[in-house]
Amino acid sequence: MLRGCYIGRFQPYHDGHHRMVEEIASEVDELVLGIGSADQSHTTHDPFTAGERIMMITKSVSDLDIITYAVPLEDLNRNAVWVSHVQSMSPKFDIAYSNNPLVIRLFEEAGIEVRSSPMFRREELEGSEVRERIRTDGDWEALVPDEVVDIVEEIDGVDRLRQVSQSDSNGHGL
Amino acid sequence: MLRGCYIGRFQPYHDGHHRMVEEIASEVDELVLGIGSADQSHTTHDPFTAGERIMMITKSVSDLDIITYAVPLEDLNRNAVWVSHVQSMSPKFDIAYSNNPLVIRLFEEAGIEVRSSPMFRREELEGSEVRERIRTDGDWEALVPDEVVDIVEEIDGVDRLRQVSQSDSNGHGL
Amino acid sequence: MLRGCYIGRFQPYHDGHHRMVEEIASEVDELVLGIGSADQSHTTHDPFTAGERIMMITKSVSDLDIITYAVPLEDLNRNAVWVSHVQSMSPKFDIAYSNNPLVIRLFEEAGIEVRSSPMFRREELEGSEVRERIRTDGDWEALVPDEVVDIVEEIDGVDRLRQVSQSDSNGHGL
Amino acid sequence: MLRGCYIGRFQPYHDGHHRMVEEIASEVDELVLGIGSADQSHTTHDPFTAGERIMMITKSVSDLDIITYAVPLEDLNRNAVWVSHVQSMSPKFDIAYSNNPLVIRLFEEAGIEVRSSPMFRREELEGSEVRERIRTDGDWEALVPDEVVDIVEEIDGVDRLRQVSQSDSNGHGL
Amino acid sequence: MLRGCYIGRFQPYHDGHHRMVEEIASEVDELVLGIGSADQSHTTHDPFTAGERIMMITKSVSDLDIITYAVPLEDLNRNAVWVSHVQSMSPKFDIAYSNNPLVIRLFEEAGIEVRSSPMFRREELEGSEVRERIRTDGDWEALVPDEVVDIVEEIDGVDRLRQVSQSDSNGHGL
Amino acid sequence: MLRGCYIGRFQPYHDGHHRMVEEIASEVDELVLGIGSADQSHTTHDPFTAGERIMMITKSVSDLDIITYAVPLEDLNRNAVWVSHVQSMSPKFDIAYSNNPLVIRLFEEAGIEVRSSPMFRREELEGSEVRERIRTDGDWEALVPDEVVDIVEEIDGVDRLRQVSQSDSNGHGL
Repeated sequence: MLRGCYIGRFQPYHDGHHRMVEEIASEVDELVLGIGSADQSHTTHDPFTAGERIMMITKSVSDLDIITYAVPLEDLNRNAVWVSHVQSMSPKFDIAYSNNPLVIRLFEEAGIEVRSSPMFRREELEGSEVRERIRTDGDWEALVPDEVVDIVEEIDGVDRLRQVSQSDSNGHGL
Repeated sequence: MLRGCYIGRFQPYHDGHHRMVEEIASEVDELVLGIGSADQSHTTHDPFTAGERIMMITKSVSDLDIITYAVPLEDLNRNAVWVSHVQSMSPKFDIAYSNNPLVIRLFEEAGIEVRSSPMFRREELEGSEVRERIRTDGDWEALVPDEVVDIVEEIDGVDRLRQVSQSDSNGHGL
Repeated sequence: MLRGCYIGRFQPYHDGHHRMVEEIASEVDELVLGIGSADQSHTTHDPFTAGERIMMITKSVSDLDIITYAVPLEDLNRNAVWVSHVQSMSPKFDIAYSNNPLVIRLFEEAGIEVRSSPMFRREELEGSEVRERIRTDGDWEALVPDEVVDIVEEIDGVDRLRQVSQSDSNGHGL
Repeated sequence: MLRGCYIGRFQPYHDGHHRMVEEIASEVDELVLGIGSADQSHTTHDPFTAGERIMMITKSVSDLDIITYAVPLEDLNRNAVWVSHVQSMSPKFDIAYSNNPLVIRLFEEAGIEVRSSPMFRREELEGSEVRERIRTDGDWEALVPDEVVDIVEEIDGVDRLRQVSQSDSNGHGL
Repeated sequence: MLRGCYIGRFQPYHDGHHRMVEEIASEVDELVLGIGSADQSHTTHDPFTAGERIMMITKSVSDLDIITYAVPLEDLNRNAVWVSHVQSMSPKFDIAYSNNPLVIRLFEEAGIEVRSSPMFRREELEGSEVRERIRTDGDWEALVPDEVVDIVEEIDGVDRLRQVSQSDSNGHGL
Repeated sequence: MLRGCYIGRFQPYHDGHHRMVEEIASEVDELVLGIGSADQSHTTHDPFTAGERIMMITKSVSDLDIITYAVPLEDLNRNAVWVSHVQSMSPKFDIAYSNNPLVIRLFEEAGIEVRSSPMFRREELEGSEVRERIRTDGDWEALVPDEVVDIVEEIDGVDRLRQVSQSDSNGHGL
């Protein structure tokens, strides 16, 4: 039994994430999706709560033929203990999946195997693009699974993102 | 669609929890299991990590005919914001399930419906009993689902609990 | 112009506190009431929120002929920086008033004058007594100002204290 | 009895804030002034401590015909629990006043009525302007109540702001 | 080159610690002394600050023929990341020394060699004894190095310990 | 006996720091080197852990004819209590040494003597330059003591800095 762990912020979960999950699904038996910055929400960079992101992920991957766990990971703001933090919050995993250079480095220094996708940081860029399109009334629906469209609408996420993006400071010093 | 949220520490997930989950399963369509004190582990009172508890729950409820989410909840140590914390970490829920008087009070003050089981705090007492039996070589296996027995063994949980229970201070002031 | 700072948890504000405030009022021009453990609430030891305690204090001292400030002080759990924390949260003060030996020590080590009442820790004991009477349906109203009775009733404080006192753990590991 | 809650950082309390307070005073019986980022001080963006800001506010509003509470609010850096945090630290209020889009959104999602002033974010811009004038020896005194001028001088605030603004990092990584 | 790490609270550093250091000195080239609960002070259980304990250790071991590092370790209150925390704060070490069952367990689960002394938890008991003798005017000087006697006197440590031990709560809820 | 305290981030310890230490060594008997942002590592701005920086400092100053203490200082993110934090973590000191305007201000407000070097913020600029050269394969070895070169190589620090600097966010929102 092989278990992988794929870490992202999933703000929101989009097609780039989904393609990566499908790719990973062919390599492992079970997959943990670690939701980074779980304590952040209601900002331009992190509009959705951890609970909302758990919903997006769980609904979107339900058709895939692989057992998944969506695990929120609160920020500790200490890179040196971050790998231990992930390991304590997640079911035990054998391989980490990430395209984030810092995440890759931290896992490697901890002696954990990391695999990256050939499309380097593709899905991270897509995250910014999706949020930008939501903010500016672009076609963001084309970039995310249908289940995510439903959830964003249900929580009035478009209005939320637009409104909070008018704040100068993204929530610092309310 | 009705979603419930059942909160416990699940140290470990045992038959008392499982009976309550089965009961709840007849009332709701989906169930969130909120894992309290997710940041605590390796003490007599909280021996297992959040990740280990996610495993116990997910494996134990996989046969039930209900969609479940196992969501770790880190302690904020501020009762007054605790309900908001749970709501932000969890998929949206309609009803909270708990037998803990404080939890019940906090949800009620927030205007959220709470349901309690007739066997008041039965499952909490069972948690202490299970840990005590693990510690003293009693028949703890009789009180938990088979899946939990497997996981406790896989992580060498019996030895862990016995060893940490020899510390005076349960981890404070290492 | 002389300003004093009197620190307590005020769970709740009671006649012992009030007598001490009246005594201090004859010595200073303005008085800061520092509300300790402002982040704690909904436990047997700390049933009321900071906001509720601000109300109790402000309403109770409104008749006194002295300018007062009710300032919530969140716990930092680091005694060594506690005096600086109080100083940064409070209008500047010349004299600290306390009967708590630790508080007295910390102010003294920081070179700040501290005055204690002759009735050593009288008001602290009264705090426990008031909470115990609330819990056990005793005559707690006799020990607090009328304004506090009103506020406790308005927030359904009697029921809250009784309910949370049934929890084993006072909120740890919800 | 109607109570309002007006939230700002008040770095420092200036005429824009004061005009808004006067406007609110005609609508409510009591007013809470919630001091955001209460734990921040000694930076270009947040030069004054919570205690200093309590002084500025209390002295400046003492002539108004309304009961006021100045309540420091420490940052929790979790938008999703922020409204609960404010509610627990503040006397109970019926209406929130703010011109900050994020604050407005958070209160609205919590089902609390929010009122905004027609002059959108006017007072926030004035805050930057006041700090800039202090820093560059401009006429900042024209933009704040006389009481604030006195307090800034008493605490040597002009020198403080100039000196800390020479640091690259505003206090990060001292 | 072999480096060891010996972890304790050192409240205060006493002869039991010193004998253990001398024993370890024969096994390693360099020794890190990790000062646990570095953020705690001014309580009966933890009377001395991290800085005071660094002084005690550095002065007491200066005669030993081994390079030492005294490293304060703040509590994170998360056992699962504690080993990583120690590793990030300390010069890299090969062997951990401890008699605390929890510490031993945590290092072992992280795959780090731990050595215990035959006199199990002897030095921990001596810590309580020293603090009790200080508190009750007993002969505590007989249990600590001369350098520690000097430092405790210089910081007025005897008076501090006696005074704070009169508080009910050891600093919680000031 | 005169003790000084020199505070920096030491990312890494370089020749600018070393010259300042040599200068200070002629003025005091003992020197504390306070390592700021001790909890930060693995970012472009703060690549090295506290433990690694303790090593760099201790090895580099071992030849100087002065007793030194390398003391890690975790960020509290509250400027108003920062001086107390430093004082509690450090052996008692008489004079603070810094060229950082914020640090100077905070010590001065606390009534502690601060001395600055004539070469204003020279050593801070050198820190950026060293990290930039490491990142871009420049001659960073010319700017740091030989001992630091050895340690950076031993911990594979060049690769670490290059890899983490590819992350957009320097670790925020992993």
